[in-house]
Amino acid sequence: MDTPLDRLTEQFRRLPGIGIKTARKLAYYMVQQPQEQVDAFISAVRSAKETMCFCSVCFNLASQDPCPICSDETRDRSTICVVETPQDVMAIERSGDYRGLYHVLHGALSPLDGVGVDDLRIKELLQRLSDTDVKEIIIATDPDVEGEATALYLARLLKTAGIKVTRIARGLPMGGDIEYADEATLAGAVANRQEM
Amino acid sequence: MDTPLDRLTEQFRRLPGIGIKTARKLAYYMVQQPQEQVDAFISAVRSAKETMCFCSVCFNLASQDPCPICSDETRDRSTICVVETPQDVMAIERSGDYRGLYHVLHGALSPLDGVGVDDLRIKELLQRLSDTDVKEIIIATDPDVEGEATALYLARLLKTAGIKVTRIARGLPMGGDIEYADEATLAGAVANRQEM
Repeated sequence: MDTPLDRLTEQFRRLPGIGIKTARKLAYYMVQQPQEQVDAFISAVRSAKETMCFCSVCFNLASQDPCPICSDETRDRSTICVVETPQDVMAIERSGDYRGLYHVLHGALSPLDGVGVDDLRIKELLQRLSDTDVKEIIIATDPDVEGEATALYLARLLKTAGIKVTRIARGLPMGGDIEYADEATLAGAVANRQEM
Repeated sequence: MDTPLDRLTEQFRRLPGIGIKTARKLAYYMVQQPQEQVDAFISAVRSAKETMCFCSVCFNLASQDPCPICSDETRDRSTICVVETPQDVMAIERSGDYRGLYHVLHGALSPLDGVGVDDLRIKELLQRLSDTDVKEIIIATDPDVEGEATALYLARLLKTAGIKVTRIARGLPMGGDIEYADEATLAGAVANRQEM
């Protein structure tokens, strides 16, 4: 029995983090919504897909090119924060303190998954460095195996270009618990201790 | 900043069980999919909404009216299983044993949420009983406060009409643990014990 409802369930299931039970729940919910609501949903998907593009400078997702961050003259153009995904840009922007620019790699080095240096926007990052006078690169890839490998690779590459390279701090998260922190986090937190 | 991506995030957030972080992840994922995939998703939503309707007999969701279950001549027409939602029909069908018909109430009695007798498909259930010779009504509402209240209400109503009314068994789920079972479940399991 392959009804349109099953096909919608299958489409929801392709989304990240959605299992078969959630997909079924979403499909049932969707077809039981009023027509206006379904139309609003479809139009939001279509309009987001049509308008969002990658910034040709930093490769962040944006509705204009260059993106609002790259076009903002008040931002500090001497610092570039390198992240894995557009979601990471959004997260750092929400934290509110950072006033420099970004560069989105669109992934992290992962030889086992077939992601190599040429699959990331590394060439474009080097290009940006030669065009402008960037003083510091902050590497904000995820603190996991792939992110750390990417950070190490970039640090070596950029240092030969004579640029200051920093890595976001590893430490205890707010609300964290020293007793339950893993060794690598705790070692990082002690090593990165700051004067009060 | 209200971009098309924010609006898509807001649309995903309206879906049941989707919080703001998941909604953001889904929106970012969607706009980064190839155009064909986005088109397939939109067309699945539209086609499911267009074709799925409520069966005029049992009020199950189906792509035809009457639904395939109500039209199936091989099914046992003397038994009706009363459930809260179309998802419940699907779940019981997947369990494979039941060969009777269904009746979907579309909710459960919940005075605090403003759901009364007239908001459920109870009138239509009584109508079905007067038209056909149904011998047993199995009440398969959820074993929670609202579901139990609905079951009790229906049982009283139907017994006055002289029909056999049964309730699905309360007991320990497969893979369950007697030590951690709650009192109501355990009491039900003992009361419903069966000869081996």
